Amino acid sequence: MPGPFTLAQIASQLGGRVAGDPQVLIRQVGSLERAGRGQIAFLSSPKYRARLAATGASAVVLAAEAEALTALPRIVCDNPYAYFARVSQLFNPRTLQPPGVHPGAWVAPGATLGARVSIGAGCVIGEGVAIGDDSCLYPAVVVYPGCRIGARAIVHSGAVIGADGFGIARDGGRWQKIPQIGAVTIGDDVEIGASTTIDRGTMDDTVIGDGVKLDNQVQIGHNCRIGAHTAVAGCVAVAGSAEIGKHCTIGAGALILGHLSICDRVDVSADTVISRSIRKPGTYTGMFPFDDNESWARNTALVRHLAELADRVRALEKRLQGKEGGDG
Amino acid sequence: MPGPFTLAQIASQLGGRVAGDPQVLIRQVGSLERAGRGQIAFLSSPKYRARLAATGASAVVLAAEAEALTALPRIVCDNPYAYFARVSQLFNPRTLQPPGVHPGAWVAPGATLGARVSIGAGCVIGEGVAIGDDSCLYPAVVVYPGCRIGARAIVHSGAVIGADGFGIARDGGRWQKIPQIGAVTIGDDVEIGASTTIDRGTMDDTVIGDGVKLDNQVQIGHNCRIGAHTAVAGCVAVAGSAEIGKHCTIGAGALILGHLSICDRVDVSADTVISRSIRKPGTYTGMFPFDDNESWARNTALVRHLAELADRVRALEKRLQGKEGGDG
Amino acid sequence: MPGPFTLAQIASQLGGRVAGDPQVLIRQVGSLERAGRGQIAFLSSPKYRARLAATGASAVVLAAEAEALTALPRIVCDNPYAYFARVSQLFNPRTLQPPGVHPGAWVAPGATLGARVSIGAGCVIGEGVAIGDDSCLYPAVVVYPGCRIGARAIVHSGAVIGADGFGIARDGGRWQKIPQIGAVTIGDDVEIGASTTIDRGTMDDTVIGDGVKLDNQVQIGHNCRIGAHTAVAGCVAVAGSAEIGKHCTIGAGALILGHLSICDRVDVSADTVISRSIRKPGTYTGMFPFDDNESWARNTALVRHLAELADRVRALEKRLQGKEGGDG
Repeated sequence: MPGPFTLAQIASQLGGRVAGDPQVLIRQVGSLERAGRGQIAFLSSPKYRARLAATGASAVVLAAEAEALTALPRIVCDNPYAYFARVSQLFNPRTLQPPGVHPGAWVAPGATLGARVSIGAGCVIGEGVAIGDDSCLYPAVVVYPGCRIGARAIVHSGAVIGADGFGIARDGGRWQKIPQIGAVTIGDDVEIGASTTIDRGTMDDTVIGDGVKLDNQVQIGHNCRIGAHTAVAGCVAVAGSAEIGKHCTIGAGALILGHLSICDRVDVSADTVISRSIRKPGTYTGMFPFDDNESWARNTALVRHLAELADRVRALEKRLQGKEGGDG
Repeated sequence: MPGPFTLAQIASQLGGRVAGDPQVLIRQVGSLERAGRGQIAFLSSPKYRARLAATGASAVVLAAEAEALTALPRIVCDNPYAYFARVSQLFNPRTLQPPGVHPGAWVAPGATLGARVSIGAGCVIGEGVAIGDDSCLYPAVVVYPGCRIGARAIVHSGAVIGADGFGIARDGGRWQKIPQIGAVTIGDDVEIGASTTIDRGTMDDTVIGDGVKLDNQVQIGHNCRIGAHTAVAGCVAVAGSAEIGKHCTIGAGALILGHLSICDRVDVSADTVISRSIRKPGTYTGMFPFDDNESWARNTALVRHLAELADRVRALEKRLQGKEGGDG
Repeated sequence: MPGPFTLAQIASQLGGRVAGDPQVLIRQVGSLERAGRGQIAFLSSPKYRARLAATGASAVVLAAEAEALTALPRIVCDNPYAYFARVSQLFNPRTLQPPGVHPGAWVAPGATLGARVSIGAGCVIGEGVAIGDDSCLYPAVVVYPGCRIGARAIVHSGAVIGADGFGIARDGGRWQKIPQIGAVTIGDDVEIGASTTIDRGTMDDTVIGDGVKLDNQVQIGHNCRIGAHTAVAGCVAVAGSAEIGKHCTIGAGALILGHLSICDRVDVSADTVISRSIRKPGTYTGMFPFDDNESWARNTALVRHLAELADRVRALEKRLQGKEGGDG
């Protein structure tokens, strides 16, 4: 493990302004609630000021407007959360797995691995695969033939890259398989979560842009294109041929239907089904509210009679109109 | 790779009628947008006529009503999408993996493999498993003891067949495990997507019919029965003891609750929760609409007051009735 | 396989009262519908009395109020379902896999395995991992470095324990990775389904309590805490830093948003999104109803105009109030 570093050393590497003792020695990051001596924590919002007051941390990262809330040695910066991320990166090696190909991995002779690539036990890397420098595949990742992964990728266990897309055509009462002859192209600085699946394209490639972050159990269908620096939370499904722009965020459990496109800088809330294209940046939501079971049952039964309810309101409006006319 | 073939050779193998030069040489399939010389594309609907006009493909598959839309060499047929699937099968070997058991796979001594079966690296095939002729298991598939897979199966990486169903009984404040002593029986011509899980039965088998196609990350609970030629899109969950008929389609992210049955020829839309049995063929939907976040918040808050809204409408109707009666 | 046992022997081991011939010989459990000679079935509810009447089972487990419904040899007890679970455990070994480390597994030198632990082929157990006595990991389970699993665990294939949580911080137009330096701590008597993923904590551990049962394809985010004896059905996602109490049940496909807490003894229905903390035991639901596609389309379109409908009802109320006032 690197370190320890003084607060001054940290700030000289990462920027920010030190307030209080710059010589305090830091060995690791920690949370406000549990950090102890030698640990640095961060304050993301003044609403956690009580935790700050009670913290056992030796130093804190915070924003200028919160600077006066503590007398602890501190680093003052614009974006404490991102700053803290970089402090933690300083103290903690990027991956849990050393470079090299584990003897329990199977790499096809025709695959190309960049410098300092790490391939865990149980990984299976197909013919013609290319993986860029400094990428880390944790155990049990499968990359099908012909797929390409950029530099500095982190791919977690159980991820499957390049399986056949779900291409079937009705033919009488049966299904004809449409061979999936495209592959998957993944940019640089991409992280792929555990058991996430990214299907190969039908004819052209499925494309994941630079800096994309996919959480666990995400499903990306064939021919999708995910724009650079988009983040996709756990259990999201993106159906075939959907295109998602750059700098988007997709909340947990959301579903993006196929053959539509989402423009740049769209935030999709958790559990939301995107059923048509979105052409305007913003936040979009379609989460159904929960309630205690009894209230839910009473209210939800009416969802199936909404059209009838609207008709009754229209009828009332007409009758009242008629009466008012008649009265006039 | 097989081929090249002339358009006439393709039609003589697969049927259809050639219009234009029958001697044009085809080497591969392609999309209308990106196909070049030597490639054949297809037109599924006249609405893509602009793409057809601009295509670089050497030939096209299309329906009779679209025949006059192009002067390119073409094959005219009833179902261009299915025809195209078969053309692509002609040019592209069925799987990316050769027959045989990879040295990195573990096949129990008591397992039975048919002719030309392909078992990828990292697969684990349990005692008493039987796999039919020409089946292909991609890397890292696990088949638990006693499960049976038919002929011509394609099983993608990360699929788990035969894990214990979720059988637990409350016993005071704890859960008693109910041993899962059934297995899984899978018919012929089944495709199973990456990271899909199919649980073994509690006492009898979980059954997947002939020709069933399951996309990625599908979960099939214990004791389920999926009828022949049903297709299930990605991230669908089928809870325990549900029965789905033949020739059904289940859209992405749908949830079929347990202990119910769906008759033949039912189409369930994406994201729909089937909470009671369906006895009539047709399309069923329960997707909640998304909206910009502000509109969603305003409208959705009212879902929790629908019963109250209906009461107010009823009160209005009574008051107006009373007034009208009183006025009369 | 253990057995056969007489009904009297079963009751002497597991309790309950025998009615009818206590010497009938039982070899295995079965379902009412399919059990034959030598098998014991159970009746969970009097509504299945027709199946009981037609059963081929040699004996039945049932409650006192159902005792008179059959003349078959029977065991009368308080909780027939839990009793049946224990009868089945008697006849069926707990796991399908013998103790020991399979030669196709990779266990890091610094990992600690308890007595009679079973590690299947393709498992990868990281540095510093500890696994308690009598635990069984089926093939292809990955446990990242530093994670701990208690005694008597059953972990199904494809499960991934300890992958990095989804910790990223916006930093200009890019994402900074927040190293995930916590681990996962799992109690005793936990079962984890196929392809379930449990992420390691950001700074502290993700914690799964004693007796917790997780079905397949469940996703547990970083820093979550799941209380003892809680059961989570398939395809549930629990977002980061959520806390779920003891003795809860979470239905299939539900989504628990992050940074909230659910108290003890809460039942969440299938497909329900929990979007704020729950402080009162009970059942909570948020499932959107399905309908035939045409009815759904008609009713659901109105969801997006609910606020407008409520406004119209309010206007009607005012007009009628005004009229009534004016009439008075």
